[in-house]
Amino acid sequence: MQRTSFQDAYCPIARSLERVGEWWSILILREAFYGMTRFDEFQKSLGIAPNILSRRLAGLVEAGMLEKRAYSEKPPRYEYFLTERGRDFRPVMWALLAWGNRHFSPEGEHVMLADKETGQRVEPVLVDKATGRQLTDQHFESVPGPAADEEVLARFERRSKKREPT
Amino acid sequence: MQRTSFQDAYCPIARSLERVGEWWSILILREAFYGMTRFDEFQKSLGIAPNILSRRLAGLVEAGMLEKRAYSEKPPRYEYFLTERGRDFRPVMWALLAWGNRHFSPEGEHVMLADKETGQRVEPVLVDKATGRQLTDQHFESVPGPAADEEVLARFERRSKKREPT
Repeated sequence: MQRTSFQDAYCPIARSLERVGEWWSILILREAFYGMTRFDEFQKSLGIAPNILSRRLAGLVEAGMLEKRAYSEKPPRYEYFLTERGRDFRPVMWALLAWGNRHFSPEGEHVMLADKETGQRVEPVLVDKATGRQLTDQHFESVPGPAADEEVLARFERRSKKREPT
Repeated sequence: MQRTSFQDAYCPIARSLERVGEWWSILILREAFYGMTRFDEFQKSLGIAPNILSRRLAGLVEAGMLEKRAYSEKPPRYEYFLTERGRDFRPVMWALLAWGNRHFSPEGEHVMLADKETGQRVEPVLVDKATGRQLTDQHFESVPGPAADEEVLARFERRSKKREPT
């Protein structure tokens, strides 16, 4: 999406941000989760300029998060559907929703996450899939993975030095 | 952070993005999680232009995610520490990391999340805090919360119409 790559192209966070790290892209995805598919629906709902919307939709298609399908030939018109990769972004969105509700909703929650069947409010929390333990930085950390090369190892080396008490 | 507000200012996702919805801000936070505090550390590690770094740091301070403290008077120099609100952003970061690893790491994981004590790799997953059930869109959805006003209700109304089979 039209920017030079981050210095740390190996980092999965940086890689993710290159695909979606922009306000509009994330809000477009949000609308897609709500069932929107057409250009004019996104535009009306987001109040976004058509040229920006075009560019962001193209970026999300290129990133493999949305799929473009024609629904009219004359005039040519397209719909945009979430791919599996796009749908898999939802936990990130919900983690963002929960954080926003905790910190920027002094007047109460305008939007909340709920059980579809019971309507019961749920509180999203990130856990280790295998053990169910909540992921806090007291007990968990990011470390070099199996594909880490010299550069990644060197970065983590510098960081761990940094964290040692002086 | 220097942009007009989103049309849907009520939305906790939009509110969050107004604070951090930019590549650099999120990468600065990532470095802060790794223990960086000083301007030149952030700059060196991210390869970011000083004027952009200044602006982003100021934005994160303004958003209450970083706290600025002087560590030298002559010349004046500052360190930046994560606030509680900033630290609470970590699950969002880790959800992003997991997503990036699943979709943009064909060569394997360069960085992974691990248990500090055992070094064991963990797989982050978003669940309902009360029941431990995994949050999938098959069973959960965002709905208007207790503070929802007319506008929010109308938006959700339009969206649910949109989703009904036609």
